[in-house]
Amino acid sequence: MDAIEVIVAKRDGGELTAAQIDWVIDAYVRGEVADEQMSALAMAILLNGMNRREIAGWTQAMIRSGERMDWSALDRPTADKHSTGGVGDKITLPLAPLVAACGAYVPQLSGRGLGHTGGTLDKLESIPGWRASLSNEEMLGVLRAAGAVVCAAGSGLAPADKKLYALRDVTGTVESIPLIASSIMSKKIAEGTGSLVLDVKVGSGAFMKTPERARELAETMVALGTDAGVRTVALLTAMDRPLGRAVGNALEVEESVEVLAGGGPSDVVELTVRLAREMLEAAGVAGKDPADALRDGSAMDAWRRMIAAQGGDPDGLLPRAAESMTVEAPGSGVLVRLDAYAVGLAAWRLGAGRARKEDPVSAGAGITLHAKPGDLVRAGQPLLTLHADETGRFERALEALRGGYEVGPAGGEPLPLVIDRITAGA
Amino acid sequence: MDAIEVIVAKRDGGELTAAQIDWVIDAYVRGEVADEQMSALAMAILLNGMNRREIAGWTQAMIRSGERMDWSALDRPTADKHSTGGVGDKITLPLAPLVAACGAYVPQLSGRGLGHTGGTLDKLESIPGWRASLSNEEMLGVLRAAGAVVCAAGSGLAPADKKLYALRDVTGTVESIPLIASSIMSKKIAEGTGSLVLDVKVGSGAFMKTPERARELAETMVALGTDAGVRTVALLTAMDRPLGRAVGNALEVEESVEVLAGGGPSDVVELTVRLAREMLEAAGVAGKDPADALRDGSAMDAWRRMIAAQGGDPDGLLPRAAESMTVEAPGSGVLVRLDAYAVGLAAWRLGAGRARKEDPVSAGAGITLHAKPGDLVRAGQPLLTLHADETGRFERALEALRGGYEVGPAGGEPLPLVIDRITAGA
Repeated sequence: MDAIEVIVAKRDGGELTAAQIDWVIDAYVRGEVADEQMSALAMAILLNGMNRREIAGWTQAMIRSGERMDWSALDRPTADKHSTGGVGDKITLPLAPLVAACGAYVPQLSGRGLGHTGGTLDKLESIPGWRASLSNEEMLGVLRAAGAVVCAAGSGLAPADKKLYALRDVTGTVESIPLIASSIMSKKIAEGTGSLVLDVKVGSGAFMKTPERARELAETMVALGTDAGVRTVALLTAMDRPLGRAVGNALEVEESVEVLAGGGPSDVVELTVRLAREMLEAAGVAGKDPADALRDGSAMDAWRRMIAAQGGDPDGLLPRAAESMTVEAPGSGVLVRLDAYAVGLAAWRLGAGRARKEDPVSAGAGITLHAKPGDLVRAGQPLLTLHADETGRFERALEALRGGYEVGPAGGEPLPLVIDRITAGA
Repeated sequence: MDAIEVIVAKRDGGELTAAQIDWVIDAYVRGEVADEQMSALAMAILLNGMNRREIAGWTQAMIRSGERMDWSALDRPTADKHSTGGVGDKITLPLAPLVAACGAYVPQLSGRGLGHTGGTLDKLESIPGWRASLSNEEMLGVLRAAGAVVCAAGSGLAPADKKLYALRDVTGTVESIPLIASSIMSKKIAEGTGSLVLDVKVGSGAFMKTPERARELAETMVALGTDAGVRTVALLTAMDRPLGRAVGNALEVEESVEVLAGGGPSDVVELTVRLAREMLEAAGVAGKDPADALRDGSAMDAWRRMIAAQGGDPDGLLPRAAESMTVEAPGSGVLVRLDAYAVGLAAWRLGAGRARKEDPVSAGAGITLHAKPGDLVRAGQPLLTLHADETGRFERALEALRGGYEVGPAGGEPLPLVIDRITAGA
């Protein structure tokens, strides 16, 4: 077998055989298939697609390129969540300890942010002392101590995906549903979770701009999880506006702690509770209701144990940005629109995100929202507060926000928070 | 500008701007655009196409990546021919001196063979002493001495094409008409010829298997040449069966010398004369008729001067393969079919061709044809003679020939030798 044969088969619209897929992934990791060959194949896949059988084979081959974790030594079911990423999407932070408090283990391997959406690890790293890198043994220790662990995926997990993702990132081959689905699911299946809830974001601030594309991605991933023996369900949720009132690393940790303390913005609370219920149902755990666990402090206790078990100080002071600037409402009326992408891009430019993998992020930078779409605002009242380490960052952030919000006489039609629910065979 | 922007524009079916094309070719040669990015772009071009304006811009950008030769110091018009490659296609050998003998200069940069079709330089190198590599000054000297020169393209000519061609070769992105046309024409335009005749081969032994694809390629190339100020015409010619009766390096030199001596197989003579007339017409030279120049020895004189001027001995003994083997006619009747690809593949396996650029070729290996499609044969008479340096090569050559020829009661329908003629605006 050689790379050209596989590339030409997909280029000409054919279906790749199981043997071709296994060979090409393995040979790519070994360096026998070169980057320029894999990128040509990725482009052919992006333009000509893969069917369900091919995507499943591709995912399994990526899983086999590395280790597969195993939590069977634990005495309770495992559940995990994956979000396709959004602006202000800090849900993992309150969700993982909440689900742990309700009786399932949450072993979550997470990532860093790239572009306008933040990364869970970047957010948690704003907590003094908190460590993202754990050995498998440490991971098990944190799980046993706190019921939940959120840490960086080691290099042993789906190395084919790691290599392929870095390649797709520079070759214009990211936006392929088969490649996105297999990338996400190879890591989640290799992570060894027994059940999985996917939060597929829809809207300007999300990777999937339309419900149709999001549904296609969700159905593909639910099928992949189900075929691999992971009980998988997906929610399509709104990302036309930011989630919650805080966008930025430390700012989002702060808001997450408010939610764990029984407060916080209603959309964050609603989505956290909904995802927790889905995870518990998928894991087959019928214990405490998540809404109760937020009220009675047990989720907060799990959070504090989880943070402490990873070296963090749950009472440590979070970094704050040195500079701030207020954006005022341009008129009186309803905040008709507050665009997720504009806010995400502005927060990125303020320092909350990175353009390249090796860039640092600012812990304190970001945006506080003083109103959400549908709220009444008065001309001149604070609409947003921008936070940055240097004032020089404000100008380009304001540029990003231009046209990103609108005050008018009547409310627009925002997407419902939960748009749809996708299950296997549905 | 960055590579991803250009890739995504073509991936999503857009038209590349002139600035995007200029930038991406230049940045690729400088190494700023990586191989894996260019191969993704090449696949997107292969699958989504380029329009005439894009192809012209792409070709011009490749020409600008290197030097452009200039023959204006010569006192007669220049004419060149390019063949897309076929089995037994030695036409350049008699054609270049023939056209020189009729009054035009022929400055031909040529290539080596890869795969089942032979390369002109490989053929000429079987002549003792003959050198393919000439400086520009030497090239001019040979042209002045003999009227024709056939040599290797220096590294200064369209280096972007050289780099891109090597990349396409290993990434399954060869079969794109815009990329094939711009690759051929960038070199031919940079070579500085005033007029150009394209021999676009059609059939099993050719790169283009159908007249439709061949016509599309021919029209694209004729338009490119015309737009660049080169008087360009194309012939579509048959490559369903081998050309002539000799396939292999020294064997084809021998046959070419027969043609220059006024003999040789009728199809080789016919195509050589036809192409010579097209070249002379395109160059605007109305002098001696090519058929006369073959008869009166003037073409042979030009050949001898050309070979000698490049260090070759026109009277030198050509290498012969040590081993031979006869393939007999399986029955009596008409040779209905003798497949060009099967014969080309067999000759390649006998040692006449190479699988990788760095492989050597055998000068003596190849195949002699004792009958051509349409000829009557008697069971047991020699049909083909295989020549190789070792007997161990015969078995795989015979395998390649299996099913490649057929003797039956009545003749098939071979393609006419010249299928069509394509001119600008036709």
